[in-house]
Order: sequence, then C-alpha cells, then structure tokens
Amino acid sequence: MSRLSDIGEDALVERLVRLVPVGDAAEGPGDDCAVVDEGGERLELLKTDGMVEGVHFLKGADAKAVGWKAVARVVSDFAAMGGVAERFLVTVALPGTMEVAWIEGFYEGMGVCLERYGAKLAGGETCRVPDGSAAVISIAATGSVGRGKVVLRSGGKVGDALWVTGRLGGSLAGKHLSFFPRVEEAAWLVEHFRPTAMMDLSDGLAKDLPRLAKASGCGFRLDGGSVPLTEGCTLEQALCDGEDFELLFAAPADGAPKEWTERFPGLELTRIAELVPAGQGEVLEGGWDHFA
Amino acid sequence: MSRLSDIGEDALVERLVRLVPVGDAAEGPGDDCAVVDEGGERLELLKTDGMVEGVHFLKGADAKAVGWKAVARVVSDFAAMGGVAERFLVTVALPGTMEVAWIEGFYEGMGVCLERYGAKLAGGETCRVPDGSAAVISIAATGSVGRGKVVLRSGGKVGDALWVTGRLGGSLAGKHLSFFPRVEEAAWLVEHFRPTAMMDLSDGLAKDLPRLAKASGCGFRLDGGSVPLTEGCTLEQALCDGEDFELLFAAPADGAPKEWTERFPGLELTRIAELVPAGQGEVLEGGWDHFA
Repeated sequence: MSRLSDIGEDALVERLVRLVPVGDAAEGPGDDCAVVDEGGERLELLKTDGMVEGVHFLKGADAKAVGWKAVARVVSDFAAMGGVAERFLVTVALPGTMEVAWIEGFYEGMGVCLERYGAKLAGGETCRVPDGSAAVISIAATGSVGRGKVVLRSGGKVGDALWVTGRLGGSLAGKHLSFFPRVEEAAWLVEHFRPTAMMDLSDGLAKDLPRLAKASGCGFRLDGGSVPLTEGCTLEQALCDGEDFELLFAAPADGAPKEWTERFPGLELTRIAELVPAGQGEVLEGGWDHFA
Repeated sequence: MSRLSDIGEDALVERLVRLVPVGDAAEGPGDDCAVVDEGGERLELLKTDGMVEGVHFLKGADAKAVGWKAVARVVSDFAAMGGVAERFLVTVALPGTMEVAWIEGFYEGMGVCLERYGAKLAGGETCRVPDGSAAVISIAATGSVGRGKVVLRSGGKVGDALWVTGRLGGSLAGKHLSFFPRVEEAAWLVEHFRPTAMMDLSDGLAKDLPRLAKASGCGFRLDGGSVPLTEGCTLEQALCDGEDFELLFAAPADGAPKEWTERFPGLELTRIAELVPAGQGEVLEGGWDHFA
C-alpha cells in the first residue's frame, strides 16, 4: 500500500486532480492562483494555502509574525500572477490547550498584513484538533488581475532569460516570517518588462525553476555562479532552503530595464538561467517537498 | 493564561474579528457565508470550513464519504443563504504515513458531490502534518445568490414562526457522512415562503437556534414537543447532536405553503418555535462547541 511519503507532492497532485471536476475557466491547477474568466474587465483569481505548526512555523514562534506570514504567502501568490489579493478566508484548526493570546496575536499579525496590502478578511472558521496534534491554518483568498495582464507559469519560450528578484537562501534565519511580498515589483515588471511566465519562489529554486520550465514546455540551463545569494549563504542553500518569496520570471533575453534600479533601489534583478528546448538543459534536485 | 477550551467558540470569534480589517461589503461575520456586493445582478458569496480527523470524521471512515461530506457541508452553507456554491478550493494537511488510496478516495467523494451540485474544483494545496497529528481538511468556496434573494440570519422579526426541514438528531449514526444539502429546498422556500432569516443546522438546534434569534435581535420560545425527531432519537439528541444539515428559518407566522409536500414529498416542514422580544423567551444550552 503506497503512502504519501512514498510518492511526493507533485505526483500526488497530478493523481488527485484527475478525480474531480475542474473548472473550464480556471487556468490551474499548476499556477500560483486559479484564473476565472467571468467576462468582465478583470479576471478573478483564487488561491488556497496551508500552514502547519512544526513545519511552516515553530511552536514558540511569535504569533504576530506567523499571522503576517500566513497572509503574506498568499499575497505573494497573487503578485506572481500580476494581480492583487482582495478578500481572505481563514480556517484555524487548533488544540484546546492553545492560549487565547496566541491566536489573538496571530489575528493581529494577519490584520497588519491585510492592511498593508489593501485586503480584507471576509470570513473565518475555527475548529479544534485533538490535544497534541499540530495546529493547522488554511488561508484562502479571492482577488483579481486586469485582462491581458495575467502572467502564467506556462508562457515561457525557448530562448527567454530567467530572472529573479532579491537574493535567495537563508529563509530559516528569520526571513520566512517577515518578508514583503513583491506586489509592486510584479506589477511594475508586468508593465515594463512583459514577463512571459512568472511564479513566486516558495519551495526553493531547485524545485520551482523546473516547475516553471516544465509548465512552459521547456528545459532550462542555470548559471549557478549568477544566483544572487543572501549574505552568508551557499548556493546549495539558495537552491534548496525554500520560502524566499522572491519572483522568478521569464522574459525575452534583452537586458533588464534600467528604470528598475531607480524604481526599486537596493533590490537586485538578476539573470540566472535561460529556457532551452524540452529534454535539453539540466536536471535540478532538492528544494522543499512536503511528502517526499 | 486563558486557553481556547476556557472561553468557547462564539466568544473566541467575537474577540478575533475585532483584530482585523473586515470587508465593508461583507455582511459577515456571523452568517453562513460572507456576502460581497460588486454591483452586479448577483451577489458573491464566500465561505471557508474545516474538518478534523477524530472530530468530523473517524480515522477509519470511508474516504469517499468523507470527501462527499467535506463538499456537502459547504454546499449547505450556500443553500442556507439562498444561493449556490460554484468554485471550490481545498487545503489538505496530512501525515506522510497516510495511504495514497485514502486521499484519492477522498478526492473521488468530493468529485461526486461537486458534480451533483454543479460545482467545480478551482484549486488545492497539500501540506504535511507531523506523523501522529490529526489530518485537517479545509474547504473554501465562492458562489453567488441573486440580488434580492439573499437570506441572512439577522432578518427575523418578533412574531415570526421558526421552521425546520426534515428530522433532527442521530447524525452520528451515519447521516453526518451522507446527507444531501437542502439546495433545491432552500431555493424553493425563498421563492414561495419568503423566509426572513435562515441558516443550516450544523452545531445542533440548541446552539444554532439561539444564534439565529440573537442575530435577529430577538429571543425565542421553543415548542419542544413539536421538534421532528429522527426515528429512535430523543429530544435531547435532536437538540444537541449537531450535523443535521437541515434548514432552520423564520417566516411570518402563517401556515406553510401547501405546495411544499407536492414539491418535496416525504420531507417534513415543521413549525417548532417563534421569535419573541429580546430578553424574553428561553435559554437553550448544549449543542456542539469546538472549544468549550
């Protein structure tokens, strides 16, 4: 009898989505958000996400920071599609032994992040897990993107260069709890750099770069020496730590727009790889897999 | 230091919603779904829900039935607003030791229920809980209701009669895994009986009836002898078991429309209580509370 830990996350998801009616209008599964076309000027975006105590945050973690992260992770997914998150729903499954002050701090942290990114809480659900079980928090959100502005993972072309914002690696030193989703940066890139494919880096470049290339029907060639490293981090950490929440995107292989550094001083934009025909290029291993 | 088990679910939710920006457009929190008015002919409805292994389903429970229930619970919330669920998002937080066949069965069951009620899966997320922790499943959904058709919990008036569909109690004998959400019934009632307030019975009449009365700014007087009991159940079970997923609604105190029995043969529609001025009437105790 095969178990989840035997098959890994991507294979599991591929098996599961065959078992249910999937929306015709949705571009997903496989993108950062599902895309729903109701015919208006804007497309609706939908996303759900999960955070587990002991996996995405530690038992003693600052509650406000965990609340910030829960919302910021999802805001980052909307940014990666070129869109914005608007209304949030939160399900918290908690042990009865949990301190009220902790969950209040968590809600306060969510509130600060919602406020910062112009979003609102539309609904929530609280339920109890048996004492001793890990707390689980699930955040779902609706949002939107202008028609013609949406960027999928699947639009990359052979010859496109691959870029990342910021520096990678070392999230566990604290960045994973206090990052700022690249909302303004993504919107600017969509206007000025016309990415053909984009995603946010949540599971590490080693996991996410092959996903973007595969979704675009391409292979890739990574220039390891060009990967921008967080101070004190190795290339291995930059590839595998995960939870960078930087943008990874493909764009025709011209230079980056020089206005970038004026608009976002101090935030690197680095060309790290290129898309090549499927079957060529490299294989990367590592990165975060929930089950493997 | 106070813990969740000290304060109970309703008090917790009241404290939490003060800590975050809540949508102006949303009628919630406190209704079965949040209501978002984007100005179109239909209002958008949003809902999130959680199910925990060992609480909402047992470890050995049939996976397909659990999947059906996960979707049906949420469909029932949309029905209770007079609306329909359209697009679903699912977050599953599972131990790595879980059998792949179980989660595949769960997705199959979700698929059957989505199909039955004309809804689609728009997105999902899988994450891992530590081995030994309870599996947690969170389902969020978007849907809609015609402008002017939406029924809140808060519209009940002093003098309205309170009605329930079907029979109450005994959900643990199996009904909680195989119920049919009252979608057609709710839509028919909205057209023909004009409920002033409505909700679905998920935590037991003893918990949910006071909630509806309070949301409407009323007290209530229950006629215990009139509560329709599932065969073999006591009044205590009908009040407190929870997970009936029948409709509870208020309507001006005329008789029920006689076309009901033609349209829904075999499904009782029973007058069980009336709304009275706040502070009068009774207090009911019991029903399901996640934390108390």
